[in-house]
Amino acid sequence: MPQDDRQAGARTVTGPLPGLDLKSTFDSEKLEAFLVTGSANVRYVSGFTGSNGVVLFLPESAIFFTDPRYTIQAAQEVKFKTVVVPKGGLIPAVLKYIARKKLRRVGFEKDHVAYAQYLSMTSASSIRLKPVDDVILQRRMVKSETEIEAIRRSVITNSQAFDNAVRKIKPGMRESELAAELEYQMRCLGADRPAFDTIVAAGERSALPHAHPTSRPINGDELLLIDMGASQDGYASDMTRMLHIGRASRRTAQMYGAVLEAQLAALDAIRPGATAGQVDRAARQVLKKHGLAETFRHSTGHGLGLEIHEPPRLGKGDKTRLAVGMAITIEPGAYVENVGGVRIEDTVVVTPNGCDILTPTSKELIAL
Amino acid sequence: MPQDDRQAGARTVTGPLPGLDLKSTFDSEKLEAFLVTGSANVRYVSGFTGSNGVVLFLPESAIFFTDPRYTIQAAQEVKFKTVVVPKGGLIPAVLKYIARKKLRRVGFEKDHVAYAQYLSMTSASSIRLKPVDDVILQRRMVKSETEIEAIRRSVITNSQAFDNAVRKIKPGMRESELAAELEYQMRCLGADRPAFDTIVAAGERSALPHAHPTSRPINGDELLLIDMGASQDGYASDMTRMLHIGRASRRTAQMYGAVLEAQLAALDAIRPGATAGQVDRAARQVLKKHGLAETFRHSTGHGLGLEIHEPPRLGKGDKTRLAVGMAITIEPGAYVENVGGVRIEDTVVVTPNGCDILTPTSKELIAL
Repeated sequence: MPQDDRQAGARTVTGPLPGLDLKSTFDSEKLEAFLVTGSANVRYVSGFTGSNGVVLFLPESAIFFTDPRYTIQAAQEVKFKTVVVPKGGLIPAVLKYIARKKLRRVGFEKDHVAYAQYLSMTSASSIRLKPVDDVILQRRMVKSETEIEAIRRSVITNSQAFDNAVRKIKPGMRESELAAELEYQMRCLGADRPAFDTIVAAGERSALPHAHPTSRPINGDELLLIDMGASQDGYASDMTRMLHIGRASRRTAQMYGAVLEAQLAALDAIRPGATAGQVDRAARQVLKKHGLAETFRHSTGHGLGLEIHEPPRLGKGDKTRLAVGMAITIEPGAYVENVGGVRIEDTVVVTPNGCDILTPTSKELIAL
Repeated sequence: MPQDDRQAGARTVTGPLPGLDLKSTFDSEKLEAFLVTGSANVRYVSGFTGSNGVVLFLPESAIFFTDPRYTIQAAQEVKFKTVVVPKGGLIPAVLKYIARKKLRRVGFEKDHVAYAQYLSMTSASSIRLKPVDDVILQRRMVKSETEIEAIRRSVITNSQAFDNAVRKIKPGMRESELAAELEYQMRCLGADRPAFDTIVAAGERSALPHAHPTSRPINGDELLLIDMGASQDGYASDMTRMLHIGRASRRTAQMYGAVLEAQLAALDAIRPGATAGQVDRAARQVLKKHGLAETFRHSTGHGLGLEIHEPPRLGKGDKTRLAVGMAITIEPGAYVENVGGVRIEDTVVVTPNGCDILTPTSKELIAL
């Protein structure tokens, strides 16, 4: 692949949040300009799906900077005035623009500028640089209707790919072969790529929440954990389902029942105004009742959108208040070392009365 | 996918470069410690394939920091003394360690520390932080025998996947379906994932060097460009081949011949001591002779290894001297808007007498 010519992130645009307002950021930091460099943030505010672009916000307008590979694409995707930088890099071009316009207090995204880049920015001119928090990521927590529809399409692709691939499971199939099949199905159904490396974990390996698929064959009489997500039109989906090859033992069935009960309790706790920590606690309390509290070693869920992990984080004691339009996962689990693990995960959107579960796949333990 | 539990990058370890020596870095910066945070650099120096680890080098030893998800994996992969940080993040734990050992001048990788992270490091203690260039990435340019074998395996997987998928091309197949098939074959043959989003571009779309596969069907009588790479055991491969559905026109055959001649000329120019720019010029001169100079709009190649794009960059006038053990791509191209494009790319390793072309796939224009 040519180094100068990376491909675009996706082929269609879901577009920025209409009416993005950065006035409070300009006011509180007394900014004359605000430079957005984080790639998901750039996509969010501008609609640009390529790999090399930054946005300079002024109080009443914005300017988009990219390189000549993206001249046509930027014209199609970005509504801002666009500056095409033939060589020397985007940041030096932005700095020149800033100097020419005699802008002084310029905010930058402190989480999305490497220290080396910061150094080059300070050495270049007499600007007063102001490090700014990741305010756009915070805005991204609440999704627009357009974004929710994109996430819904991604979820549908993901669930359909799961159904298609599960039909192809044969005894002796390797974890890595099944992962390849799941990702193949996803792509054929319209995904640009998996949203993360697909997890396929058989038997005792299901107890490792971060298992990478191996050449281990899927045998009879064991649990099979599949955690998969599509990235489609830029937006992620995320689902975990459990299968059992042969009839599940009583112990396995009980563990599955407990995790399902915890998952349903967490879903039931979702409502606008509830804290992320309250939803997490709802799941944790059910697992505690079943003596499985110690086996649940991660948080109950996370936001998702342009990235697979976005705020809020549904972890212990998290104070973030849920709001209508947040897209989150609910995925409690129980993991017993050397035995096996169970996780059940849906992608949902917070609604005025609770939540809309986007994932259509059945949550019964699938017996093969 | 649980946010707390990202999966490991790959399942086996090719290991760090034996005898990595940072003495010159310690001396020139007068360091008492050097913190390595870039994820590919961490993998390179420690062998760790997980997602959350940093290495603190001391003059005579090194300490590895990770979180409890990776306790077992770190013990298997990392030879350094390991500190498992239960909560609060790795950097604060490193800072505490530095304070306890009363280390003063601490180097950090200025390209791999966000400004926000730098701020948190400065506020925490009385350390004198020294920004350090990406010296480990520079070392990574020359590959060890073990690394070259890993790249060779990745190349073989990639070429075999190409052969398997090409047999399945049918008239009317969509670009995205073929991309899905190529990536499926890669994974079945042992790749962990594609090294980058596979490029499949038919007809006039082959003139876009960064084409993302679309739902456009592959028709008769047109060029088809496939640019693909595997990531296997952490190491990347990269290959571009051209197919022609039906018999190629004289113009297309001439363009193909010119690019192939340019590619062979660039391969022929590779030798230890030659500059990257000389190799680039060898390709460019051939294309100029054929009146195609203006149609070649990217550099002739790039290094690859743990990342798909590493130094050296084989671009115009680049002064980097090639050395035995460098792994690079050679990929000249010619792109004519609204007509089509041709690119031919191999992965090669610099040897004492020239180069070893790892890619086994034929470079004839494949007629289907």
